[in-house]
Amino acid sequence: MSDQIKFILDENRLPESWYNIAADLPQAAPPVLHPGTGEPIGPDDLAPLFPMALIMQEVSTEREIEIPGEVRNIYRQWRPSPLFRARRLEKVLDTPARIYYKYEGISPAGSHKPNTSVAQAYYNKQQGVKKLATETVAGQWGSSLAMACAMFGLECKVFMVKVSFRQKPYRKALMESYGATVIASPSTETDAGKAILAEHPDSSGSLGIAISEAVEVAAKDADTKYSLGSVLNHVLLHQTVIGEEALLQFEQADDYPDVIIGCTGGGSNFAGISFPFIGRKMRGEQDVKVVAVEPAACPSMTRGKYAYDFGDTAHLTPLVKTHTLGSSFVPPPVHAGGLRYHGMAPLVSHLLEIGQIKAQSVHQLETFQAGLQFAKAEGIIPAPEANHAVAGVIQEALRCRESGESKAILFNLSGHGHFDMQAYSDYLAGKLKDYEYPEKEIAMALAGLPSVG
Amino acid sequence: MSDQIKFILDENRLPESWYNIAADLPQAAPPVLHPGTGEPIGPDDLAPLFPMALIMQEVSTEREIEIPGEVRNIYRQWRPSPLFRARRLEKVLDTPARIYYKYEGISPAGSHKPNTSVAQAYYNKQQGVKKLATETVAGQWGSSLAMACAMFGLECKVFMVKVSFRQKPYRKALMESYGATVIASPSTETDAGKAILAEHPDSSGSLGIAISEAVEVAAKDADTKYSLGSVLNHVLLHQTVIGEEALLQFEQADDYPDVIIGCTGGGSNFAGISFPFIGRKMRGEQDVKVVAVEPAACPSMTRGKYAYDFGDTAHLTPLVKTHTLGSSFVPPPVHAGGLRYHGMAPLVSHLLEIGQIKAQSVHQLETFQAGLQFAKAEGIIPAPEANHAVAGVIQEALRCRESGESKAILFNLSGHGHFDMQAYSDYLAGKLKDYEYPEKEIAMALAGLPSVG
Repeated sequence: MSDQIKFILDENRLPESWYNIAADLPQAAPPVLHPGTGEPIGPDDLAPLFPMALIMQEVSTEREIEIPGEVRNIYRQWRPSPLFRARRLEKVLDTPARIYYKYEGISPAGSHKPNTSVAQAYYNKQQGVKKLATETVAGQWGSSLAMACAMFGLECKVFMVKVSFRQKPYRKALMESYGATVIASPSTETDAGKAILAEHPDSSGSLGIAISEAVEVAAKDADTKYSLGSVLNHVLLHQTVIGEEALLQFEQADDYPDVIIGCTGGGSNFAGISFPFIGRKMRGEQDVKVVAVEPAACPSMTRGKYAYDFGDTAHLTPLVKTHTLGSSFVPPPVHAGGLRYHGMAPLVSHLLEIGQIKAQSVHQLETFQAGLQFAKAEGIIPAPEANHAVAGVIQEALRCRESGESKAILFNLSGHGHFDMQAYSDYLAGKLKDYEYPEKEIAMALAGLPSVG
Repeated sequence: MSDQIKFILDENRLPESWYNIAADLPQAAPPVLHPGTGEPIGPDDLAPLFPMALIMQEVSTEREIEIPGEVRNIYRQWRPSPLFRARRLEKVLDTPARIYYKYEGISPAGSHKPNTSVAQAYYNKQQGVKKLATETVAGQWGSSLAMACAMFGLECKVFMVKVSFRQKPYRKALMESYGATVIASPSTETDAGKAILAEHPDSSGSLGIAISEAVEVAAKDADTKYSLGSVLNHVLLHQTVIGEEALLQFEQADDYPDVIIGCTGGGSNFAGISFPFIGRKMRGEQDVKVVAVEPAACPSMTRGKYAYDFGDTAHLTPLVKTHTLGSSFVPPPVHAGGLRYHGMAPLVSHLLEIGQIKAQSVHQLETFQAGLQFAKAEGIIPAPEANHAVAGVIQEALRCRESGESKAILFNLSGHGHFDMQAYSDYLAGKLKDYEYPEKEIAMALAGLPSVG
């Protein structure tokens, strides 16, 4: 086993392909359904929203999908990202566990999101698209897409959930610095937005509403496509570059993870780090335990229902089978904005259903405590979303201390927290709290599930 | 010449020594003087403020000073930092110049400052010091020292200029996240602070005042030492790891810089990237043009006087020969807070005097325009300080377009701008302005120079 603390790869070892887990599933994930007919949709149904290359990736069952040269050229700026051995944290925890983390915070946008935004901008540009519309909550995704659009000369319109638009002016400024147009959602630019505002003039918005607005804009304008930062198969696919690199880096380290831990909101950073390893497990090559950690306040995998549901509030999207809390559920205002989504990536949900992964939830205060312990030991202050993974890792490492087992634990440190210091400030001032399981709200939202599938 | 865009080094190629430019100077820099006697000071005079190992580095003339193993272990987390070829920016500028940048924003604190904070914390810990006191303006330095103190189990007290303390709660939160105590300066904790408050109860503070407070705390408490983030020889020394790596990376790139450009406030990031190259020039090995870029609103090198001056407002520091605007000068509120200092590192000033480097100034609006052009092309949004270097680089690259010369230009991208989005937001909203040369204020401050040296 190597005694290094950092495992880097030369840029010529940057993976040449993304890994498509659909190729290795023992049974296929349930199909996406048309909300009108209840029948499986075909590529043409998605053509108004996405370029054909991305639609083909969405339905592909090829194991390896080549990363285009132009995308790899941009990846090279921050990829391969480093894999670290957290030796100082291990020492603080006094654990025999070997803790590794893959660090995506070195990307220009500070998170893993550019792995897919660059790819999506590339394929749209290839097809002659002029403009992308998207939504963002905390702004991680919006700023990553804005950056990619700047690089490819595409216009970018971001519907930003109104409460974040007001509370997170710095994320907005970052998107605007890259040249994007940022609109507070709900807005008067769309029918979906107008309908919400007519009923709730003071609506502070939600991710579901913002998705509706962005989808509507794309559906109505031939020059505009829609871009999503998580959930969909092709988005998860692009993130697998993280895990593909990690496989090579574990060879360097002469080690292999016993446990992989990722935080889950829509599922993309979790999929990115874990899918290549789960693929090896499903192919019978090497076993690994994989754990998704979600907020107790938005527990789609641990408390949601596995059912067909919409991805948005206005019900403009197709129906996907997912662990859902109901598309009208508005999660409590935990600071991990990127994890506040009612559903889960269909592929991640499917893996949970077929027993390939496990899920657990953690409360907000534990995540910040874990994040600060990590920061003081390792220097890097994680994004609040990533703190969920850190909390799961610390739990596992402390179990190793109890049992004396020296497990290798890998997690994805999906982004730095430099844009999230208000959350840390609130935590340090004792202003944060844990939220009760929102039982009534979730029951109400689940009662509204569509009756298909 | 390599066609790669990123030059990384394996962690086993992390330099084993810092480079001490004092060894190669054709004539030594003027000595540091005791303010009372006007005589050169000795190591013992500095002992109340610094551990002896750092004092010996301050006066050393050895060319190579070994980086302790424990410091290298921590460096490994973000070092060697990447050297990038800015091919997309070159294309946008339509220049035959080859633009390279060393990127220090991947450190946990987001800037080059941890290169010295980690070393300083280490040597203090070695000597049994319990606590470090320092000052910070924008918070880059304070957060870097707070991080290093957390790693070595030292207490950390940061005097933060009051106007920043109020305007930059996120930097404060970062320091507190690492466990530091942050105090608004001027404070009632020191005589220096009390004296200012007695005269100006509403004082919003300045770097000079904050230095006085931190120095006073260290001088009065045997368990506490003082730590400075720039200006001093040993601080510049620690930053040379940047340039030492760049030398190796240029070998990889099969290229060599014709021009090196850095922004200057106190001089440490500039020294870090340039000193190893200037050393080669002074030893007659390879020529290079080196340019320091400073704010037109705080033009110590281009408009200041080369004279002995204090480093602080309360005149508690020794006297150093420096390009100064006068220690009582309070620079206009440009957003590049890290460059708002009345003086310059004595070693950098000396190099300017003996003709080894050049200096130029740029106005604020040009720096933000340059920073945004860089961000849209390269993805990374630079800190406002680093935008000064970017502006100088773009000027040089456009001169190359005029002349048709294909020069290799290297600059230090000393930090990312993720903590500085208010500045970008203000720029995009048209709220920023350029400042006239503060002629009267500087003349007044210079009239108060001490009459020694």
